[in-house]
Amino acid sequence: MITLQSVRYNYMSIDSAIEELVKVVKLNISVQDMELENAAGMICAEDIYSPIDLPPFDRSAVDGYALYSEATSSASSNNPIPFKLVNYGSVLPSHNNAVPISTGQRIPEGADAVVMVEDVIREGDIIYVMKPIPKYGNVSRKGEDIRKGELLVAKGTIIKPQHLAALSAIGMTHVKVYRRLNIGLISTGSEVVSPLQGLKAYEQGFILDSTSILIFAVLSAHKFMNVNWYGFVKDDEHEIKAMTEKALNENDILIFTGGTGPGESDKTFKSIVEMNRDIRIIARGLAIRPGRPTSIIIVENKPIFLLSGFPVAAYIALYEVVLRALYTLLKIRNELFIEVPARIVKRVYGSAGYDNYLRAKLFKCNEDLCVEPIMLRGSGILKSLLEANALIVIPRNVEGFEKGEKIWIKIL
Amino acid sequence: MITLQSVRYNYMSIDSAIEELVKVVKLNISVQDMELENAAGMICAEDIYSPIDLPPFDRSAVDGYALYSEATSSASSNNPIPFKLVNYGSVLPSHNNAVPISTGQRIPEGADAVVMVEDVIREGDIIYVMKPIPKYGNVSRKGEDIRKGELLVAKGTIIKPQHLAALSAIGMTHVKVYRRLNIGLISTGSEVVSPLQGLKAYEQGFILDSTSILIFAVLSAHKFMNVNWYGFVKDDEHEIKAMTEKALNENDILIFTGGTGPGESDKTFKSIVEMNRDIRIIARGLAIRPGRPTSIIIVENKPIFLLSGFPVAAYIALYEVVLRALYTLLKIRNELFIEVPARIVKRVYGSAGYDNYLRAKLFKCNEDLCVEPIMLRGSGILKSLLEANALIVIPRNVEGFEKGEKIWIKIL
Repeated sequence: MITLQSVRYNYMSIDSAIEELVKVVKLNISVQDMELENAAGMICAEDIYSPIDLPPFDRSAVDGYALYSEATSSASSNNPIPFKLVNYGSVLPSHNNAVPISTGQRIPEGADAVVMVEDVIREGDIIYVMKPIPKYGNVSRKGEDIRKGELLVAKGTIIKPQHLAALSAIGMTHVKVYRRLNIGLISTGSEVVSPLQGLKAYEQGFILDSTSILIFAVLSAHKFMNVNWYGFVKDDEHEIKAMTEKALNENDILIFTGGTGPGESDKTFKSIVEMNRDIRIIARGLAIRPGRPTSIIIVENKPIFLLSGFPVAAYIALYEVVLRALYTLLKIRNELFIEVPARIVKRVYGSAGYDNYLRAKLFKCNEDLCVEPIMLRGSGILKSLLEANALIVIPRNVEGFEKGEKIWIKIL
Repeated sequence: MITLQSVRYNYMSIDSAIEELVKVVKLNISVQDMELENAAGMICAEDIYSPIDLPPFDRSAVDGYALYSEATSSASSNNPIPFKLVNYGSVLPSHNNAVPISTGQRIPEGADAVVMVEDVIREGDIIYVMKPIPKYGNVSRKGEDIRKGELLVAKGTIIKPQHLAALSAIGMTHVKVYRRLNIGLISTGSEVVSPLQGLKAYEQGFILDSTSILIFAVLSAHKFMNVNWYGFVKDDEHEIKAMTEKALNENDILIFTGGTGPGESDKTFKSIVEMNRDIRIIARGLAIRPGRPTSIIIVENKPIFLLSGFPVAAYIALYEVVLRALYTLLKIRNELFIEVPARIVKRVYGSAGYDNYLRAKLFKCNEDLCVEPIMLRGSGILKSLLEANALIVIPRNVEGFEKGEKIWIKIL
């Protein structure tokens, strides 16, 4: 009557698993030309060098009057020097003239500095300058911002607003980006049902799924990915295999949540590895806590990540395994996490052989940052995610951290 | 021939300007019911309390066998205690029985602990337990995650993936959020033209606009805003007034870039304040560098922000003025910036009377974070934005920072 399928976890390290994965998988993501206004958050697929100097000419950095700086050298409040204004043009007629100029306008030939509107006294078409203006004062020099031939955006960069600004400045209206990665998200687990079932599900002994939307929302915040959410599939070999076939056809990568444990109803791993396809098991279990059951299988060059059905374990594995793997596979240059040093306010212990991830609260304490681990057991504890704004990692070769020790933490 | 419109800047502090703005403006943003899967990044418009305990019952935290903990008290490897397995059900028949249980399943009545699959030896329908299991060992207790009546998401919270997970767990499929704020973005400035004009524009003495897309992209990354980009309007009073009328009808807030300086061709401020509408000037110039010309006008309860045409000045003002104002007006609870302490590696000076913003590079140095200001003059310097990952603020009452001093910086 009762059978438990054999458990053969290998609990490898994340680093080894990703190294292995990258050896085996070559993602082949096509490149498309995208309008700049849609390109923020996409991955740049080309090295972009500036075809021009920026500014392309000496230009005024302020609203004021362009003049010849030497002619102001003896100016002071006791010795205001008059300049006769002439209309803006390409040449300054003489050293006794000044030209009204707007911010960004090209400096007329013969002028080499700009005096600010606020710094002169004006009477009709005469301005009086009260202090010397240095050569190139208030002038943006040709090429001082960006030099012709300079690398502006490197291939593999997740495009930020400031990149778009730089590309606009060099006359680009489109940029080559990798097409959006398609990620298939599938939920399994016999105790878990869709939130559409409502609270009555709890009375029937079921748990409303909170993990799928967590993963969906975290991934969807990355514009270079497109998440196809397939909903629930029963813990049934045929259904899992059929869903995997379908989702593999429609996606570059699959993520399963739930059904990864050693229990008898956890059929996801077993069903996938028994498919009649080119299968390669990268990891059956990883040396992380929470997230031990996390597994990685390659089916014909497409990675399938099996994550815990528990929201916290899945969340940790999503960042530390799935996103790290994707960043590595796609050669993304941006940092996945911001890491900062903080003083830990409680002693914490790891568990030998596992990288331990603690959710934590980062806060200001006097002149420093302090971090308090949220001491809630259990990988299903949603509250720890609601309160957490940081992750503490206790590496598997470290026993723990002393109270007051300064450690590097990851900002969530 | 040459006239310069009168300059009457008041250069108030950002704090005073926002305080004034909040007194005058009451944004009236309607509330809508949104599906959870679309709600990440929106602003929650209700306080949400949990209607239930979570977990709603004692449940197993692992795959294993539910049993009565006391019955394992004398177990050891020399004294393995046998338990006869019975099928999963709502009651444990006797203290000599154990029930196979999956992660998340309800603990049968009479059982109070779970022994993990990995920790027993099994022979047919007998398991041998080799060590005592504490009461509630591997059990998630009812309500240990979330208590009935506990506040899960507060009104004014920008919804994150983990909030969606918590709402799913309490059976919600929709959440009340503020409808997206409509932001009208308009570019002006006589020297600036659309990047669509291409590089030949530079030969003609024009500058390709890079500021508008920067603002567009920064704001568009905030899901609770919808940016309507109107393109360019000439530095002409009639055109500016007509565009302002149109954009005010279609948006909650307007942002102009360019045309804000003291020069004669800068007509945006003048044109708007001369409109035949209920006008209130909040700030004509702000005490920030870069960004001095930044101005704020209220037209019939709608704020209009005038930003510099220079990308860096506009970027700083966008975060420090526009976004801070919106966060305050909408009572958003999330932090706009992550702030961390870092050691500054160069001496820097501010300018008296102004809050100075320096773009900077944050990097790891030994056991600390160090920050290096990017010493590029000029508010038009795009490269400083490409290289920057942090902002240093030198407040107007501070002369500067010494080399090696520890200061709080904002992460970009």
